[in-house]
Order: sequence, then C-alpha cells, then structure tokens
Amino acid sequence: MTSTPLRLLGISGSLRKHSLNTALLQAAQELLPPDVSLTLHPLNDIPLYNGDLESSLPEAVSAFKHAIAQSDGLLISTPEYNYSIPGVLKNAIDWASRPAYKSPLAHKPVGILGASPSPYGTVRAQDHLRHVLAAVHAYALPHHGLLLGGANQKFDEHRHINDPSTRERLQVFLADLASWTRRFRTPHHP
Amino acid sequence: MTSTPLRLLGISGSLRKHSLNTALLQAAQELLPPDVSLTLHPLNDIPLYNGDLESSLPEAVSAFKHAIAQSDGLLISTPEYNYSIPGVLKNAIDWASRPAYKSPLAHKPVGILGASPSPYGTVRAQDHLRHVLAAVHAYALPHHGLLLGGANQKFDEHRHINDPSTRERLQVFLADLASWTRRFRTPHHP
Repeated sequence: MTSTPLRLLGISGSLRKHSLNTALLQAAQELLPPDVSLTLHPLNDIPLYNGDLESSLPEAVSAFKHAIAQSDGLLISTPEYNYSIPGVLKNAIDWASRPAYKSPLAHKPVGILGASPSPYGTVRAQDHLRHVLAAVHAYALPHHGLLLGGANQKFDEHRHINDPSTRERLQVFLADLASWTRRFRTPHHP
Repeated sequence: MTSTPLRLLGISGSLRKHSLNTALLQAAQELLPPDVSLTLHPLNDIPLYNGDLESSLPEAVSAFKHAIAQSDGLLISTPEYNYSIPGVLKNAIDWASRPAYKSPLAHKPVGILGASPSPYGTVRAQDHLRHVLAAVHAYALPHHGLLLGGANQKFDEHRHINDPSTRERLQVFLADLASWTRRFRTPHHP
C-alpha cells in the first residue's frame, strides 16, 4: 500500500529555550512514519488576542493561520501551567479559531502530547486542550499520546529521549496520528 | 458595625475597547458596598509568558503582580473563548502565579463574573477559571456571581446595565465578595 505524504505542523506550548515540550516535538521529528513530515511553528511572535484587531490581522497571526491551513494535521505538545494549558497556547488557539466554525482549525486532525517534570505528566492540561479543540471543531485523536511525567529525567544532554520505552510509545503514537490524519484529509487531498 | 476599607482589583479577560466584561466591571464600580473600592488593571501590556524571563521580569508583569499584592481581593470578569477562559487572562495568571504557592495570588480572595452574548453566559469559562485559581491557591468565592448571557442586550449606549434585576444581582454579589474578602484579610489588615 502506498501512502500519500502528510505534512504535520508541530506546536509547543512553551516558549522556553530548553522547553521539554519543544524537545519532545524535536524527538518526534526523528520517529515519524514514512512519508510524514513535521515542521515546528513557534508561538513567540503572536500578540495577545484582541478582537478589535480581527479586521487587520497581525502578521504573525496570519502566518500561523496559514501554516495551520497548509498542514494536514497538528501535533501539539503542551506543558501544564496551573492545572491547564499555558495562556500562550490558548491565546494562539483563540486567534486561529476565528472565524468561528470556519477557521483553519475546523476539521483539522490533532495529536496531543505533553511533558512535565511532575508525575502527573500534563494530564489536566491535555484534558483542557481536548475540550478547547472540541470548541473549534478540530478532531483530536481521542487517546493520550504521551503523558510524559518526570520528563526532566527523560532527555539526554543532546535533548534526545534516553528512555527506549518512551521512544517506542512516541513512535506508536505518531503512527496512530498519521492514520488518524489520513482519515480526515480534506477533499483537495484525495 | 464599622468596616475597614477594602481595595479590590478588577481584571477583565478581554482587551476589546467595547468589551462587555470591561463594561461589567465598570458597572460594578457604581454598585460597590460602602468602604469598598475597585480599580481596573488592564492586561494589554503583559507579554507572553516565558519562563526564561523569570529572572528579570518585564515591567508590566511586575506592575501587575504588585497591584495584586496591594489589593485585598480580585474581581475577574471573563469572556468565554472556545469553551474556556481567554489565553490573555490565562497568560496573566501564569505570570502572576510565580513563584508557585508563594505568588501574590496565593490566599487571595477572588470573585468571578462573566458576560457573553451567548445564552450560556460564560459558564464553562468560569468553571475553568475556578479550576485554575485552585492551582494558584487563591480563594474563589464559591458561588457564581453573574453568568450574564445575552449580555449585548443588557447595557445601554453609555455602557450602563439597563436591566434592574441584573444590576441587583451584581450588587448582591459585590456585597458577598466584600464579606468573603474580609474573611481572608491578611494579618497586616486586622
């Protein structure tokens, strides 16, 4: 069976240079199934959401929405801040969610990951993210990818995953996300 | 019975100039119990949270944290974006929540309001906000203040509440918040 190439867009919920969640996306880039690419899109330049600016979108917002529209699916890796997703990530979704129900997020397949030093592994953040993605009519892969607790112990000094079972779980999840994404390909990708 | 003066800090989750939630806080300023003041603190200048900047806080973040610390309690009015609180509001809380458990939000009494054109009146956003406030060890007044649905019909052209029952409910809630705040006054306000 041949498979059409898939373009995934990777979004980290943390802006920290040494973010565990960005490292997790970078690790994912090494573990993708054949014919799947993953490009990271940093959120650093996206301003605070203000509905008054909808009529003339800031450039970083247009670029973000365009990148989502051009992708076949998203892979979001989120830290957990205060029992939920970071404001930074929610803010980017708030921008991308417009116009309601017709945004680039509508009908977009999404895989959710999260890494945290805590033993809970971002489980509350991932549940909130799933709830928010339902609001924008995105299609989140229903099962958890990685609830990576103790994540500060799971990368080596080159930011590679040092734990074979974690690497394997990530690889399986990425294959699941590729299958999930192919189910929802938009009509112009038959 | 005499009561000591209370200083409340008002936070709107929307940056829109004609925000219904900002209007609701402005309406609250007219309906406060005796000896209670409410100062609004806009979130417009607060940058995206980045843990790398914790060692040298942006000025707008320091000012926000200082304003919280100087207040006796908070009154937050939140829109609902995508079934949750705006990223803008979550981002401000993420900054203010540091250092964990010892932030200016810890042990701070908070009243929650929300206005929306939708009939659901921000109920999901308010529930998420309550969950987030638990994470920062703030003390949210347990009952709902206003779940102000159809809010675009409830202000006149001067941004005053045009509905007597809404005005009355807000007034009762503000009295409840004042009592709640006095229960938790820090030791330097005996």
